[in-house]
Amino acid sequence: MNAIILTIGDEILIGHTLDTNSGWMARELVKLGVTVQKMITLADRKEDIMEGLKEAEALADLVLITGGLGPTNDDLTRDTLCEYFNTGLVMSAEVLADLEAFFGKRGRKLTDRNKEQAMVPESCTVLRNPVGTAPGMWFERQQTIFVSMPGVPFEMMEMMENLVIPNIRNGFELPHIIYRHVNTIGIGESYLADLLSEFEKQLPVKLAYLPGLYTVRLRLTACGTDKERLEAILEEQVSQLKVLLADYIYSFDDETMEGMIASLLLEQTATLSTAESCTGGYIAHKITSLPGSSEYFKGTVVSYANEIKAEVLGVQQSALEASGAVSEPVVREMAAGVKHLMKTDYAIAVSGIAGPGGGSPDKPVGTVWIAVAGLDEVITRKYNFGKKRLQNIESTALMALNMLRKLLTRPLD
Amino acid sequence: MNAIILTIGDEILIGHTLDTNSGWMARELVKLGVTVQKMITLADRKEDIMEGLKEAEALADLVLITGGLGPTNDDLTRDTLCEYFNTGLVMSAEVLADLEAFFGKRGRKLTDRNKEQAMVPESCTVLRNPVGTAPGMWFERQQTIFVSMPGVPFEMMEMMENLVIPNIRNGFELPHIIYRHVNTIGIGESYLADLLSEFEKQLPVKLAYLPGLYTVRLRLTACGTDKERLEAILEEQVSQLKVLLADYIYSFDDETMEGMIASLLLEQTATLSTAESCTGGYIAHKITSLPGSSEYFKGTVVSYANEIKAEVLGVQQSALEASGAVSEPVVREMAAGVKHLMKTDYAIAVSGIAGPGGGSPDKPVGTVWIAVAGLDEVITRKYNFGKKRLQNIESTALMALNMLRKLLTRPLD
Repeated sequence: MNAIILTIGDEILIGHTLDTNSGWMARELVKLGVTVQKMITLADRKEDIMEGLKEAEALADLVLITGGLGPTNDDLTRDTLCEYFNTGLVMSAEVLADLEAFFGKRGRKLTDRNKEQAMVPESCTVLRNPVGTAPGMWFERQQTIFVSMPGVPFEMMEMMENLVIPNIRNGFELPHIIYRHVNTIGIGESYLADLLSEFEKQLPVKLAYLPGLYTVRLRLTACGTDKERLEAILEEQVSQLKVLLADYIYSFDDETMEGMIASLLLEQTATLSTAESCTGGYIAHKITSLPGSSEYFKGTVVSYANEIKAEVLGVQQSALEASGAVSEPVVREMAAGVKHLMKTDYAIAVSGIAGPGGGSPDKPVGTVWIAVAGLDEVITRKYNFGKKRLQNIESTALMALNMLRKLLTRPLD
Repeated sequence: MNAIILTIGDEILIGHTLDTNSGWMARELVKLGVTVQKMITLADRKEDIMEGLKEAEALADLVLITGGLGPTNDDLTRDTLCEYFNTGLVMSAEVLADLEAFFGKRGRKLTDRNKEQAMVPESCTVLRNPVGTAPGMWFERQQTIFVSMPGVPFEMMEMMENLVIPNIRNGFELPHIIYRHVNTIGIGESYLADLLSEFEKQLPVKLAYLPGLYTVRLRLTACGTDKERLEAILEEQVSQLKVLLADYIYSFDDETMEGMIASLLLEQTATLSTAESCTGGYIAHKITSLPGSSEYFKGTVVSYANEIKAEVLGVQQSALEASGAVSEPVVREMAAGVKHLMKTDYAIAVSGIAGPGGGSPDKPVGTVWIAVAGLDEVITRKYNFGKKRLQNIESTALMALNMLRKLLTRPLD
């Protein structure tokens, strides 16, 4: 089964809204064994939408459409679908009741504008929307299914999870497409490819290299009908990669760096705190984005001002004066300070120049010191990242977490 | 001038990588007066890329292509472009020298695999890549320009900024497409549309509603040749919206909530600190994502564990025991505590249940208390957000910053 994802909205084409829906839908389709062949983003313009529908119908078995279903005048998807399928609008009593309930629950009056949203194309199957006002629509014509959903991400997700995915799963026999990912850090894409050149020659599945900031993700893909066999083939290849790339692998599949650290800390029933200067709370945010992080994470001091480093974290004024805030002694004291203040087993501390200002010939923008304090030692390291502020924040967080990961996985003497 | 953005990469079609390139390129094109008509994402498959190029050539004056230029076997863009333009590969001495310099600077040896990247299509103009290994390519055929760039975001951005945008600006006379945005918070899309129904009737430009989490962004679009006239028309409409929506507007155009707060704090030469429980440092991260934030932001205590609330922030044990960590008295003391500890003029404190665990009938997941401490008062408010952890973190940060904004803009008695 081949799918095309159609996204409708000027706001995406002018770059004001980032389309996160298509990626989410793609992940769900892959799990079902559906191949996404193409993603298309179109303007809120009738002719463009008509053309897009025609193109999608010619290529795909399944067309998932989001956007353009709101109650305002710039929303054209529903009316264009009527024209495309040559059908009229009828009032859906069911949707009207949903709308009344939706507004009633919020103590608000159903406006005429919203009442209009209960008008649906006669030839579609309505997909009810329990968390918003625009219903979805399911059309079938010859070999192609068209599903139109709201563009608001959580409304689309709810509709996909409760209606669209179960309908597809029940209605079709689908092949298995299986992925395994091996996530590496600290080695460039072409070095990795050279390390794996022999491995690639004998490889019975597809291998892709996905480079990121200081990381390269390897993706192995297998496709077929016998799921267990495919899984066994991939597992065998992953085992080989474990040997070939031991030093560089930090996790597998969708496990993030912070997820790895969570598992390791939970395993050791150990706790963590952070002292952050240039990352301004971002490391803590990454850690606490995970459910259950309160089990091992106790807290953070963001010491953006130097006096906080001294007064809250107990960094000695002499160290700040002698070496400056971005230095090995200071970051070492920050780590020890927050570890003591928050009574944790481990602590991360970072201090650096995120930019664009604040650099000097001695310590240019991108200079970062990281310290990781463990049970009875502190490891420090200096990095020189680039010139871009947000990339420096991201890189610092990643490298700091990786230093902690290494400390947590180091074999005991 | 009409553009199509072509993105090439299986990793996007399976939802493993979020395409942020297209939106960034769209914003740059809009600034130039180029209309992005369509965005297309294609698989790493020769036939699909050939078809995509054909489709784009038929529709657009400018085709921006990213992805598929790496040194590994899954990268097909360069060879497909050769086939599409019926041209062969030649060794570029210039690119080879760049590659040697690139590897030399990093103390690494140029591998054969990377040397291969100096082979470029004979009929293209090479775009040198100072920050990576894959050169870009500029093709022209009849009325259409094709530009192929690396998919790694910072390499693409560098190439766009230094080569592609200047080339387009110098080579073409472009119309002006001008946008103004009015950013609102605390009013739903359909209520807003009703408030503006009279305004919309007389509107000489296009209006779009872009709903987000607790916000709606209004976008006004004007297109034409007389830039100053267009700007005056939009300015007049924005003035009318200021009157109609005074209570709901928090900023204009690309000014974010944290950007507004930055301006207000700088204007008042006031300082800020935060005490964060459920947001885990995210508010601090948003604030410190802005360059220059050290001018007004001093720091944060993330008090994920209750004992940090008591020991570092000075919240009274009795308040924690009597009312619980998610309560008005505790969040009030957290705000006062961090304000005192960090010696700032203003402070934000939040405590809530981000979920998925930790809820109770009394305080379900999504319950959040926010306090904002000002010069001589503390304002508190309780919110009930939803069930999703990341949305709760995002909503809490937004509402907390909005409470601070209101306090900072309140007229003096």
